[in-house]
Amino acid sequence: MRYGVLGTGVVGRTLGGKLVELGHEVTLGSRTEGNPAALDWAADTGGAAGTFAEAAESAEVVVNAVGGRVALAALEAAGAGNLDGKVLVDVSNPLAFEDGELRLSPVDSDSVGEQIQRAFPRARVVKTLNTVNCEVMVDPARVPGDHQVFVSGDDPEAKAQVTALLGEFGWPADRVLDLGGIRSARGVEMWLPLWLDLMRGFGHADFNLELRRAR
Amino acid sequence: MRYGVLGTGVVGRTLGGKLVELGHEVTLGSRTEGNPAALDWAADTGGAAGTFAEAAESAEVVVNAVGGRVALAALEAAGAGNLDGKVLVDVSNPLAFEDGELRLSPVDSDSVGEQIQRAFPRARVVKTLNTVNCEVMVDPARVPGDHQVFVSGDDPEAKAQVTALLGEFGWPADRVLDLGGIRSARGVEMWLPLWLDLMRGFGHADFNLELRRAR
Repeated sequence: MRYGVLGTGVVGRTLGGKLVELGHEVTLGSRTEGNPAALDWAADTGGAAGTFAEAAESAEVVVNAVGGRVALAALEAAGAGNLDGKVLVDVSNPLAFEDGELRLSPVDSDSVGEQIQRAFPRARVVKTLNTVNCEVMVDPARVPGDHQVFVSGDDPEAKAQVTALLGEFGWPADRVLDLGGIRSARGVEMWLPLWLDLMRGFGHADFNLELRRAR
Repeated sequence: MRYGVLGTGVVGRTLGGKLVELGHEVTLGSRTEGNPAALDWAADTGGAAGTFAEAAESAEVVVNAVGGRVALAALEAAGAGNLDGKVLVDVSNPLAFEDGELRLSPVDSDSVGEQIQRAFPRARVVKTLNTVNCEVMVDPARVPGDHQVFVSGDDPEAKAQVTALLGEFGWPADRVLDLGGIRSARGVEMWLPLWLDLMRGFGHADFNLELRRAR
């Protein structure tokens, strides 16, 4: 498959690198041409580097791996036409420092997943993986147990396709919980403040939640 | 011990009933004297019924089991003097319907736990148990696995006392995770939207999260 991964931060480079390892054609997209991090990544992995638009244009599946607060701007730069009908995997969280504290925006009455789906109604948005660190995203066996990830989205086929991709990353289908429509992106984005407190307490990010249920 | 449980809804009645069962002296507090739910509860369990102020006055430990959005009003009615120096266990969530959807308020930049601690600086507030259904609060064995609850609060001794109480409820100390100061009430309150989506998906509330970690 041909993937366009938007974002040259650690999340984009980690996801892109894993996708190359799995045998996919990957273009890592950045705001500007010739981004040094993207060029280094391309040299290291054998993937390609390009602009957001170049990454999205050549892709069958687009992955939003920029921060949640700049996701819409990155996707506009990628171009609505380059997203039409494509699965758009959103792994972002809208975290930023405000008054010296990490805050979410949007929160509670909206989410980045929903913002993206509204702005690009012809893209098939699936929110996933934002609940774990990027190392765990592509290597769930770093953490013991049958811990889980979630998918949220309005298009069942897109969620099935993303569930298969998660399987390639090492997440068996029975550890991928379908939360429903893209509205449920709110809940997984609002998991982040607890995740951050746990990370501070544990002293590392190699953890995840396993839901236990009576039936 | 003498407990004052504020709130005659299902959460207050369930927690109060369990505390009576454990041999504690419990007064279930309500806004008005002669609340029928409280009187029924008292007749059923052998506990006492009273006003918020009566419940708090006689108590060594006060439990806030009213909804998060009315917590401050209930505690004002209980009386600041009746909370002075006491452990105040807050199990509430600030959920309410807005525009036909469940929303949290406060959220992200504040929490009910923090609001209570600010309003009653001499109370020793511990946020806990709000992440599970009230049946699970008092009977964790309803759900299989080593799933966990959290404590948040600024007073380590108060958290130790609440951890002991959780032990009476059936939560071993190694399944009580200390998240830090009362500020961390934000994260556990923001867990609720995901919890609600999971409840809808599972079709019941007998579930909880177990954190799995590499080390």
